Amino acid sequence: MVTLRDLEAALATALETAGRGHRGANPLVGACILDQDGNLIATGYHLGAGHPHAEVDALRRLGTLSSATARTLTMVVTLEPCNHTGRTGPCAKAIADAGIGTVYYAVSDNTAASGGAEYLRSRGITTHRLDDDAAARTLNHRWFLSKKQQRPFITVKLAQSLDARINAPDGTSQWITSEQSRNHAHGLRSRVDGILVGTTTALVDNPRLSARTKDGQLHSKQPYRLVMGHRELPSTLDLIRGDDWEQIKTHDVHEVIQRANELGLAHLLIEGGATVASAFIEADLADELYCYQAPLLIGAGSSSVNLPTTTLSQAHRYRLDTASNESLARLGEDIMLHLEPLPRA
Amino acid sequence: MVTLRDLEAALATALETAGRGHRGANPLVGACILDQDGNLIATGYHLGAGHPHAEVDALRRLGTLSSATARTLTMVVTLEPCNHTGRTGPCAKAIADAGIGTVYYAVSDNTAASGGAEYLRSRGITTHRLDDDAAARTLNHRWFLSKKQQRPFITVKLAQSLDARINAPDGTSQWITSEQSRNHAHGLRSRVDGILVGTTTALVDNPRLSARTKDGQLHSKQPYRLVMGHRELPSTLDLIRGDDWEQIKTHDVHEVIQRANELGLAHLLIEGGATVASAFIEADLADELYCYQAPLLIGAGSSSVNLPTTTLSQAHRYRLDTASNESLARLGEDIMLHLEPLPRA
Repeated sequence: MVTLRDLEAALATALETAGRGHRGANPLVGACILDQDGNLIATGYHLGAGHPHAEVDALRRLGTLSSATARTLTMVVTLEPCNHTGRTGPCAKAIADAGIGTVYYAVSDNTAASGGAEYLRSRGITTHRLDDDAAARTLNHRWFLSKKQQRPFITVKLAQSLDARINAPDGTSQWITSEQSRNHAHGLRSRVDGILVGTTTALVDNPRLSARTKDGQLHSKQPYRLVMGHRELPSTLDLIRGDDWEQIKTHDVHEVIQRANELGLAHLLIEGGATVASAFIEADLADELYCYQAPLLIGAGSSSVNLPTTTLSQAHRYRLDTASNESLARLGEDIMLHLEPLPRA
Repeated sequence: MVTLRDLEAALATALETAGRGHRGANPLVGACILDQDGNLIATGYHLGAGHPHAEVDALRRLGTLSSATARTLTMVVTLEPCNHTGRTGPCAKAIADAGIGTVYYAVSDNTAASGGAEYLRSRGITTHRLDDDAAARTLNHRWFLSKKQQRPFITVKLAQSLDARINAPDGTSQWITSEQSRNHAHGLRSRVDGILVGTTTALVDNPRLSARTKDGQLHSKQPYRLVMGHRELPSTLDLIRGDDWEQIKTHDVHEVIQRANELGLAHLLIEGGATVASAFIEADLADELYCYQAPLLIGAGSSSVNLPTTTLSQAHRYRLDTASNESLARLGEDIMLHLEPLPRA
């Protein structure tokens, strides 16, 4: 028999396992499969958009089993199994096809992928929502907010010195951060749907905005390139190539979001400069921060973030995203912080 | 028989053990004791000024032994045993009195405490300097520099937001960092001989500059309080009490150091504000940095460090002090970085 204590332990494990993935177009999700005595026999997690969902990952790790055995198994998942076909097939159908007998989930899905629980019941599977889903909701609190606000999940990258400068007064900035940090940031680029920079960054740094491996090869998935602002961009810029880029002539972050939605970009990476990053932070549109920090003091030059704050209580507060397995890391001589805004009360 | 490989392994262990202490008035030192077959039988380290030196710590951990046994033992220590009586007795004499047969040390002591090797030899103890002492020298490279420059070892504390602000535009700064960070900084205060602030910090923040435990009690050792600058200090300031404080009417860091030397302050903590901290950093007088960083973006207000840099190559470069066992720590929601300037080539 699977006891309530077994279910609680399985949810805790599923939440921890979820942190092995990356939030973005999709939320973090973890799943556990228990046998008829409540023993954990498989775990699964969702690595990120384009990869198998947690439920399918757990089923795969389980291997093949008879339908009689499958019927005795219980799946515990941090989020209601999806009911839609996106880059992967619907999980609810995969669970039913595998013949799993019972499903518990922690958080209801109220996005376009909802309806999984109803589908499972229609296939004769005992399906319940677990009562206390606070931790499971917190796991993806900003992702749910982004869905509610009908906009992409937004990652802001900061790459700065210990004194939060992004360049010296003469504009030199290559390189403040370590090679390992820059490689890590290319990994970020390879997971998002779009990258945004301001016109000043495009003109001064002339970035390619491609996602490259550490030996300079292109990742298989490349982000759409967006430049925000009114200044004219010469066609010689490295980011101007092919059809997968455009300039959005605005200073309004909401216009950028509207265009990203039209383009179907579910995960947007804000690469700077300071003005663009600050605009998203000020509008409470930064769902997570990756802050790469190099151990040097420049002592002058541009600050990474500028906000119209007057007193300390107006500061924007974050916390290390401890659900993720890389909330604080050393990257060569640098450190990297993965932060999320504090959950709303 | 003790082999060369045994000695190398013992030095590596001694270097690692040394990192359990704190640099300051005294350097980091570690010691190992090997038996006649080269087996490690005791380690010791120096916690910091006022505590037993590494050699004495190792001898204590060894317990009592016959003079016949002692004669078969080998001590390996990262620094030449001291030969002077400071807050503790000379180590060379303690080693000789314990009857240890052989001593190897990695770095010669050329400070006021030198002469230990000669003393040991005069007592009939086989005493050698190990050949490759690069790691042992690097362990305390800034401490040796401070001794060479005949000045205190200088610690600079930075307490800042993620965007390196130390206050908001209206001057509010209490509290940017976490309670755990502030308690940690009080531990720092309890280990130094003197604390320095500028007149602006004294007037605006009105700090007590005492070293307190987390329940508000005074640590047994309290730092001498120094205020640097010309502005007049009203006698109502909290730091103005008793005889263990003074104002140094200068903006010249070298005058502060001269006065600290006259006062016999071997370890000085620079607590700010930005102008004072920046002056010591700019003069390459920061032997270590403790950077407390809170996960918030203020977006305006004073930067923690301001230097007359014009281009990136002039930046002051540091590295996490990995010899120390707390080079990167989480303190509540904050992170703490313990950094040292890169060793000179």
